[in-house]
Amino acid sequence: MQNFDTLLSDGPAIVLVEPQLGENIGTAARAMANFGLKDLRIVNPREGWPNERANAAASRADHVIARARVFPTVEAAVADLGFLLATTARSRALAKPVLGPKEAAAALRPRAANGIAGGILFGRERIGLMNEELALADAIVTLPVDPEYASLNIAQAVLILAYEWRLSGFSGEAEALPFGRPDDPPATKAEMLNLFEHLEASLDAASFFRPPERRPSVVEGLRAMLQRAALTGQEVRTLRGMIAAIERRPTRPRDRGDGTLTTGRGDEP
Amino acid sequence: MQNFDTLLSDGPAIVLVEPQLGENIGTAARAMANFGLKDLRIVNPREGWPNERANAAASRADHVIARARVFPTVEAAVADLGFLLATTARSRALAKPVLGPKEAAAALRPRAANGIAGGILFGRERIGLMNEELALADAIVTLPVDPEYASLNIAQAVLILAYEWRLSGFSGEAEALPFGRPDDPPATKAEMLNLFEHLEASLDAASFFRPPERRPSVVEGLRAMLQRAALTGQEVRTLRGMIAAIERRPTRPRDRGDGTLTTGRGDEP
Repeated sequence: MQNFDTLLSDGPAIVLVEPQLGENIGTAARAMANFGLKDLRIVNPREGWPNERANAAASRADHVIARARVFPTVEAAVADLGFLLATTARSRALAKPVLGPKEAAAALRPRAANGIAGGILFGRERIGLMNEELALADAIVTLPVDPEYASLNIAQAVLILAYEWRLSGFSGEAEALPFGRPDDPPATKAEMLNLFEHLEASLDAASFFRPPERRPSVVEGLRAMLQRAALTGQEVRTLRGMIAAIERRPTRPRDRGDGTLTTGRGDEP
Repeated sequence: MQNFDTLLSDGPAIVLVEPQLGENIGTAARAMANFGLKDLRIVNPREGWPNERANAAASRADHVIARARVFPTVEAAVADLGFLLATTARSRALAKPVLGPKEAAAALRPRAANGIAGGILFGRERIGLMNEELALADAIVTLPVDPEYASLNIAQAVLILAYEWRLSGFSGEAEALPFGRPDDPPATKAEMLNLFEHLEASLDAASFFRPPERRPSVVEGLRAMLQRAALTGQEVRTLRGMIAAIERRPTRPRDRGDGTLTTGRGDEP
């Protein structure tokens, strides 16, 4: 479940994926604090945690560092979020919307106002985010850097996004936009991941991925597609029920021998 | 004279006033390069120049560092500019417009498109800009930081302004706005400084500043007022002619003894 109490008052979670240098964590924390963000999540920091150099670089942003949480995987770090953005410098052929920083804030703000916890993924210093990490995101954020010199570091990217988040709060429009409904919230990332894994395991069992070398790219496309659908939690539960049902019997109705037909529905746990 | 060739294609000059640390100069250069700015000016850098730590922190922004120019005073650094902004974290009772970063870019962009060279002053790490430096500016820029944690460093402030400058170039509106005219450009900062000094020397000679302790604050208010007027070069020349004329004779018409009255006008150089 989403932890509305802490997340919504603080703006989106800033998720740093396998940062190499403690300095970058510290300067990212400082960037967050300047624009009122407090929820820092770190996936598998290479220098371990806590990190003295992160503390030193954070200046007075001790409150952000002290509250930072470390996760072993991106999936764990974003499990409670209902809307996830991923930053990337390179444009890739991803079947996802691509937003600028201002549009990113404009996408996060009304969702936050409607109880949907948001987050932004920032990749590794040298290699950024993996395609399977990008696949978790609802949209991609790119920064409008000079293509002749694109060398924004993590903290600089965090600063721009945090700045736009804060600016977006000064307009009174966020509260009015309709996003989600209390009785039908978007699926959390944990729900989506469970759906992906359920579906992929099911497809594995069915020897769907042939040849096996193609599995990663097929999975990526499948996840991107499901992500793009912006499913609600209820829709995810329905889909999983459908998968479970299909797993237990052939997809085509078959004769039970007593004259009735199975439908592949109606007896999920 | 303004050097249109180099300045206008590069966006506003970034003027760092007495930066303490080479790292901050380097990271500011990196921030500039990411958003296409190239004109870096450094006033009296405390560690001297060139600076090895600035080079190291600049990452691949060598072209910005190589082109950076060092000046002994703020006045010298901004002399060729026609529109100057000054960043400040603290709000002060200054008789100047206060802009956000977006408004700052919106003020710089159409002027640049009309041949008016712009610049932005960034203050010292600990104490920012002096009041007499702020007085040189046409407007103040403040960043919308969280008042509970305002600790933006120089490079972060440069990054936000450079980002907004770049964004402002993506709208096609800049060229259309009327700012200045080729035959009546705004006064350069050098022209304004000459005007200030001329007027203040004249007032000194007239024992205007009484008691003398009040001189600094009175001068500051006077400069702010003239700055606010956004004078053209022609207007500055007219004002200086008026001051010169007044200096040479009493302000009240007096009897020349031949029955005619002097007017304090008409015989300037």
